[in-house]
Amino acid sequence: MTEKEVCVLRLGHRIERDERATMHVFLAARALSASGVIYSGQRDTELEKRIQKVVKRWGGPFEVKYERDWKKVMQNWKERGVVCHLTMYGININERLDKIPKDKPVLVVVGSQKVHKEAFQLADYNIAIGNQPHSEIAALAIFLDRLFEGKGLKTEFEKAEMRIAPRERGKEVIFESR
Amino acid sequence: MTEKEVCVLRLGHRIERDERATMHVFLAARALSASGVIYSGQRDTELEKRIQKVVKRWGGPFEVKYERDWKKVMQNWKERGVVCHLTMYGININERLDKIPKDKPVLVVVGSQKVHKEAFQLADYNIAIGNQPHSEIAALAIFLDRLFEGKGLKTEFEKAEMRIAPRERGKEVIFESR
Repeated sequence: MTEKEVCVLRLGHRIERDERATMHVFLAARALSASGVIYSGQRDTELEKRIQKVVKRWGGPFEVKYERDWKKVMQNWKERGVVCHLTMYGININERLDKIPKDKPVLVVVGSQKVHKEAFQLADYNIAIGNQPHSEIAALAIFLDRLFEGKGLKTEFEKAEMRIAPRERGKEVIFESR
Repeated sequence: MTEKEVCVLRLGHRIERDERATMHVFLAARALSASGVIYSGQRDTELEKRIQKVVKRWGGPFEVKYERDWKKVMQNWKERGVVCHLTMYGININERLDKIPKDKPVLVVVGSQKVHKEAFQLADYNIAIGNQPHSEIAALAIFLDRLFEGKGLKTEFEKAEMRIAPRERGKEVIFESR
């Protein structure tokens, strides 16, 4: 766990078509210490319910917010923090990670369908997790893991109803009594 | 790039329902220096064509193979290498990464739908990329990035028709003349 404030902005969500991929983005963000996600595109209340159910069961804090105007989200964030857009067209993460200020809140932007030109312009950094066709979920995971210097994988969540007891073989889930 | 032999086994693929998620698994595996992927579940020739198209355009080598009998794949691999199954129920990667022999080929197993008990038994290591609900795509990406000690993000592919010229802003693709 870490004190750094990181939020993920998912662009261009489409109901049904992106349902699973966006859920993967949300789960990766939560597991890797992001404080929350903002998504734009189509509003998807089913998706919101699904991630909120995960937070209720497995703990938080983790916020999900819909914002139609993603440009405003990026612009507002820049007033107090840094915006990193993950794209295969950007500069390799190996050359950029050190440039991200350590003391500022970070907004990590990931697209789904084609990303608008303005996102490239508004971002402080356009960062490639390798300049190859990639999964934005995989890219986000690597970016967060590296940003948090390997300490991003959270082990303690608040108000969890259940947690896993790690095992060499098989499954063990513990239900917390309140 | 690295010389270590790593292959990814994707379990339980379902046509349509898993099409995008499995494609993400394949893309992440390719971008992060796996030599190829094997998948089981339903055979999906459309999916195979899609990843082969990526390899033709962006370069290889990267092999895709379908195998109905995933148990045999795991058993055969164990004769010469190590099988790591990624699961939220396993032992945290921070405690396991050092135990994976550096000189042996690694088969990384990721599920989609519920994973059969026998996969947990056959694996040499059941490893959790955090013991939380997760994306198997994100888990695979972090595992490979760490296994290759941050050198897994490949920059050079063979026989590529196109490649990206990294830019601070915007997109630039270069078409290779042969």
